[in-house]
Amino acid sequence: MLITRQHHPDNLETPAHALLETLTPAHYVRSHFAVPALDAAEFRLKVAGQVASPLSLSLAELRALPATTHVLTLECAGNGRVYLTPKASGVQWEVGAVGTAQWTGVPLRTLLERAGVADNAREVVLVGADEGQMDDPVKSPGHIYYSRSLPLSKALDNVLLAYEMNGEALTPAHGAPLRAIVPGWYGMAAVKWLTEIRVIDHAYQGYFQTVDYARWERQDGLPPVRVPLSEMRVKSQILTPAPHACVQAGEELELCGAAWTGGERTVQRVEVSTDGGQSWQDAEWQQDAAPGVWRHWHLSWTPQQPGEVKLLSRATDSAGQVQPAAHDPHRGSYEVHHIVAVPVTVKAKQEHKEKS
Amino acid sequence: MLITRQHHPDNLETPAHALLETLTPAHYVRSHFAVPALDAAEFRLKVAGQVASPLSLSLAELRALPATTHVLTLECAGNGRVYLTPKASGVQWEVGAVGTAQWTGVPLRTLLERAGVADNAREVVLVGADEGQMDDPVKSPGHIYYSRSLPLSKALDNVLLAYEMNGEALTPAHGAPLRAIVPGWYGMAAVKWLTEIRVIDHAYQGYFQTVDYARWERQDGLPPVRVPLSEMRVKSQILTPAPHACVQAGEELELCGAAWTGGERTVQRVEVSTDGGQSWQDAEWQQDAAPGVWRHWHLSWTPQQPGEVKLLSRATDSAGQVQPAAHDPHRGSYEVHHIVAVPVTVKAKQEHKEKS
Repeated sequence: MLITRQHHPDNLETPAHALLETLTPAHYVRSHFAVPALDAAEFRLKVAGQVASPLSLSLAELRALPATTHVLTLECAGNGRVYLTPKASGVQWEVGAVGTAQWTGVPLRTLLERAGVADNAREVVLVGADEGQMDDPVKSPGHIYYSRSLPLSKALDNVLLAYEMNGEALTPAHGAPLRAIVPGWYGMAAVKWLTEIRVIDHAYQGYFQTVDYARWERQDGLPPVRVPLSEMRVKSQILTPAPHACVQAGEELELCGAAWTGGERTVQRVEVSTDGGQSWQDAEWQQDAAPGVWRHWHLSWTPQQPGEVKLLSRATDSAGQVQPAAHDPHRGSYEVHHIVAVPVTVKAKQEHKEKS
Repeated sequence: MLITRQHHPDNLETPAHALLETLTPAHYVRSHFAVPALDAAEFRLKVAGQVASPLSLSLAELRALPATTHVLTLECAGNGRVYLTPKASGVQWEVGAVGTAQWTGVPLRTLLERAGVADNAREVVLVGADEGQMDDPVKSPGHIYYSRSLPLSKALDNVLLAYEMNGEALTPAHGAPLRAIVPGWYGMAAVKWLTEIRVIDHAYQGYFQTVDYARWERQDGLPPVRVPLSEMRVKSQILTPAPHACVQAGEELELCGAAWTGGERTVQRVEVSTDGGQSWQDAEWQQDAAPGVWRHWHLSWTPQQPGEVKLLSRATDSAGQVQPAAHDPHRGSYEVHHIVAVPVTVKAKQEHKEKS
C-alpha cells in the first residue's frame, strides 16, 4: 500500500488517496540507515548530561509512567521535493511523505523533571540507534548515529516518547521500541529507535541539523547563516482530482485536500483556484482546527468549458502565514510548501447523454 | 612564479623552492570569488552590531591610527590536499598554499575599543566584499559574501587589519585595500577585501564555517558535531630534495624544510627519517621560535646504499602535539598535516670519480 521511493534504507510514501482519511492507514516511512536490531527486553533509555540524576530506564519502567496520547501530523521536511525545479537530489517525494497517527507514550518532560535539568541546560539531544556513513552532500566522519536536538523549552513543552502508534506497539520501521514525537515540527525531529537523551549547555551542531536538515536564514543584513529545520510550514495539498485527471464539463465534483501548519499554529483558511490563480474561493473544512494536526477541506466545482485547467490551493494559518507562490531557495530541497498546480483536462459534455 | 591551480577565481600556489626563504617572495593566493572592484578613495570600513558607537572609517582614518607590523605565516586549510587518498574534491594544493609575509595595519582591538563592545558580545563577524554563488558541497542561497567569525577573545587579542604587505600597499589579489590577518589560524580567517566588522551576541553559522571550512569533533560521546576550522595544526614539510629527486650514495646533502603550528604555540622539534620511519634524527633550526611564524630546519644526510628511500619529517610543538602518521577523516579535506613521505632515488657512486 506504500510507494517505494528508495530501498536500503526503506523510504516509503503514502499514495495520495490514502491521505483523505484523518488517521493515515499506511503511514510514510523515512529512514536514513538500516533498521537497527533492538531487543525490547534488553532495551534501556539513557537520560544523561546536564542533569542532577542520570536515568537508565527499561521499557517496562517507561510503560509504568503516566502515558499521554496525541493525534499528530508528521510531514517529512522533503515532502514535495519532486516539484522543485531544477531537480534537487534526495528522495523524490510527491505528496505522500506526510501522515497522521495517534501516538501514545511518556511526555519527555516527565523524564527531564525526574532527572533534574541543570540551570545551564540549553538543548536536549535525541540519539537514535540507527547508524551508518553519510556521503551526500558532505561525508560524515565514518559511521554516525542519527541524532537531533531540541531547544530545552520545546523539550519541556509537548514532546512525547512514543511506544504505541494507533493503539498498537510501534513497528520496527516506525522506530520500535521507542520514538520521539515532536508536535508541530517536521519529521526529522521525530527520532526513531531512541536510546539516549542528552541534556547539553550549548547549541548542538550534529550532521542532521547542520549539513542536512538545515536551511539558510538572513539575520541583520549579514550573509546567510545555517539554521536547523524545525517547525512545519503552512501547506495545503489537493488530493482529488489526481494530477492529469479527466473531468467532465457541466458535472459537479468535489475538490478535496488536506492542509496543516507548524508549531502551535492552526490552519485557518484554504482558498482554491480553478483558473490557474486568477480567482479564488474559500474551501470548507471537515474538521475543527487543532495544533499539530492536519485538516481536510473540500469545495464543490462544476467545470464549465472544455480545456486544460490548473487547480491551485493556498492555505493560511492562525499567524497569518500564507503558502508562497514559489519555493524559497534559502530552504534548499526542504520545506517545499509553495503552491503546486494540479493540471486537469475538462472534457466536453457527452452529447449522447444530452440527446437521451 | 606562482603555480596556477585554478583560474576564475585565481588559486595560485608558491613553488616549493620559494618556501625556503623566511619571507615568501611570491605568496600564495586563495580566492573564492572574483576580485571585487573596491575604490580606495570611496572605501569605508563599517564596525557595527553589539557596540556602543558604530564606526565608519575611511582608509585615511585607518592609516592615521597607531599601526602594528607582524611577520606571520598563513597556511590555507586545504594545503597538501593532493596527498589525500582517496582524492578529495577542491583545489589540489601541493606544499605551496603556505607562506610568510610582513603585515602592517591597525589592531582590530583598537577599533573594537573605540566602538565600545557591549557586554553580551560573543563573536566578531568579518565580512569581505567578494561575493558569488557556491555550489559545492552545498548550494548557497544565491550570491553570498565571504564572511567568517572570530570569538571575541581572539578578536581582542592579536588580530590585525592590514593595509600593507611586506612594506608595500596590499595588492588586489591579496585583499586590497584591507585584509584581516589572524595570527596562528588557517588562512580562511584572514578575510580579504574586508568592508564590515559586525559584533554579535551568538555563534555565527555562516557558509564558510559550517558547510565549508569546518570539521567534525566528537564531544562527550555524542555523534560528531560541526566545528569551524580555526588554529593551524603542527606541521612540517620537506622542501629539498624534491620528490623523486636522484641523489648520490656517499655524497653529503642538506635536507631542508619548514615547520609551523597554530595558536600561541611554537614548533619545538623536527625529526627526520631517511629510512621510511624506522629511525629518526633531530633536525637543526635556522631561526628562533616565535608564535605564528614558521621555522626553517635542516639536517645533513649522506645516503649510503643505492635504492629507493622515503624521507619523512615529523614536527612537535610547544604543547606536545605531534604530526600524526595518517590524515584524520574528521578533518575532511582540510587540516592535512599528517606525515607525507618524499620518495627519492639513491644512485650508486659514480665509478669514474673513484678511479680519477
